[in-house]
Amino acid sequence: MTAPVSRDLGRALCIITGASKGFGRTLAIQVYSLLKPNSVLLLVARSRDKLNELRADLASSETDRAGLAIRCVVADLREKEGIEETVRAARETPSADIEHLLLINNAASLGDVSRLATSFTDPREVDSYFSLNVSSALSLTAGLLGAFPQRPGLRRCVVNVSSLCALQPFPSWVLYCTGKAARNMMFQVLAKEEPDLRVLSYAPGPLDTEMQVQARSTTRDPELRKTLSALHAEGKLLTCGESVAKLVKLLLEDGYQSGAHIDFYDL
Amino acid sequence: MTAPVSRDLGRALCIITGASKGFGRTLAIQVYSLLKPNSVLLLVARSRDKLNELRADLASSETDRAGLAIRCVVADLREKEGIEETVRAARETPSADIEHLLLINNAASLGDVSRLATSFTDPREVDSYFSLNVSSALSLTAGLLGAFPQRPGLRRCVVNVSSLCALQPFPSWVLYCTGKAARNMMFQVLAKEEPDLRVLSYAPGPLDTEMQVQARSTTRDPELRKTLSALHAEGKLLTCGESVAKLVKLLLEDGYQSGAHIDFYDL
Repeated sequence: MTAPVSRDLGRALCIITGASKGFGRTLAIQVYSLLKPNSVLLLVARSRDKLNELRADLASSETDRAGLAIRCVVADLREKEGIEETVRAARETPSADIEHLLLINNAASLGDVSRLATSFTDPREVDSYFSLNVSSALSLTAGLLGAFPQRPGLRRCVVNVSSLCALQPFPSWVLYCTGKAARNMMFQVLAKEEPDLRVLSYAPGPLDTEMQVQARSTTRDPELRKTLSALHAEGKLLTCGESVAKLVKLLLEDGYQSGAHIDFYDL
Repeated sequence: MTAPVSRDLGRALCIITGASKGFGRTLAIQVYSLLKPNSVLLLVARSRDKLNELRADLASSETDRAGLAIRCVVADLREKEGIEETVRAARETPSADIEHLLLINNAASLGDVSRLATSFTDPREVDSYFSLNVSSALSLTAGLLGAFPQRPGLRRCVVNVSSLCALQPFPSWVLYCTGKAARNMMFQVLAKEEPDLRVLSYAPGPLDTEMQVQARSTTRDPELRKTLSALHAEGKLLTCGESVAKLVKLLLEDGYQSGAHIDFYDL
């Protein structure tokens, strides 16, 4: 007999990084509709304007969301201060007030895909990429788990927004592939270390986002660029909505193995 | 019909990072004996004393190595200057003087394995780890391939000294596993992008080195610490010599698929 699938995410503190656009924004909207009263949705991004716009959109949505707090943190996660500010904002919600901590590590950048690996001779450029795309995910996750330690009645879940690039090398995407592979392993180790924690790496598939535009217009490798353009031209890109829906289903069903890497197309 | 296996590495410029001890030191010794006259062995490490000692050991070895240059670069590869200094030293050998460029990215650190992932709240600490263990390998490789571009008659080979940790998560080794997974993907992308290049990730197995002492004495996870202690107590650690020998055999046979990840125990 399987446990019944939840219809909501409970009274949660949900933190979404990179929430101002693309997958993160859509995720915020879908998650918002699944939070129980007295939940907190903490949205993190660099752009104050875009976050405020999202907050206004959420607040004016038809869903009756009385008793739900939306908090915005304007932060650059490449900086230590940005991570600290996010943890500080999360701490404003006392652990006793929630039954579910849900962190979605979504913030990411594609990196300069117009160049080949052999052009990355400046380690500072590479460092800066990994700082946002790898280190910040570890330190933010660590900071939040420290702020909300394991206790009876608290369910804790960490999502790593991943990519097929975590598993397969794509020419001219050395930073992106390397960062995603690093994150996948990082969250696998975390899952091993913290048996009470739920850890999920989710690869959302090829999404119709700004990042995809950047990818198909600047990718150096001609074959890959052609493939990306064809995905677009043939209408094969996924909407953020359909991909987010699968992630949300995974979270509600809560049946995945902690540490697993699950792709949109696996489901 | 297979091509005959080389008995030497040709007239090479061979760069070994982390050459002052452990696997890198043994590698330097075995590679030295396989270089043809007018080759250059470039040894990179932080410790001037240890490099000088290694050079003295090599120079006094029985092998008749007339016409072989040993150059030492004292450099910290966490720093941009350390990478630039290494590339500069390599450039002192004109490309026309060699038939084989062999770069062995061996330098690495274990990271603090006495702590769990949830303790890495400071992104600067994580950044610093990835700087040495991931970024420097990319930037040094990029710099050297740029200094020795593809040309007829020049064979170019890049080795990534990897680990089982690139493929499997080990509790309390979050930095090491993440860094090795990142590198494995990084060199796979490089292999895809540069079809003329030979790229090999080699996992040397559990070696009887200083790093292994650090691992078994400080690893936080009790199960893993016990496993590591048992490997040592039961004499199951590999000597650097036997593991280096397998890597050298792979390089001489030159039959691996570029970008492959090969473990000591795969062979």
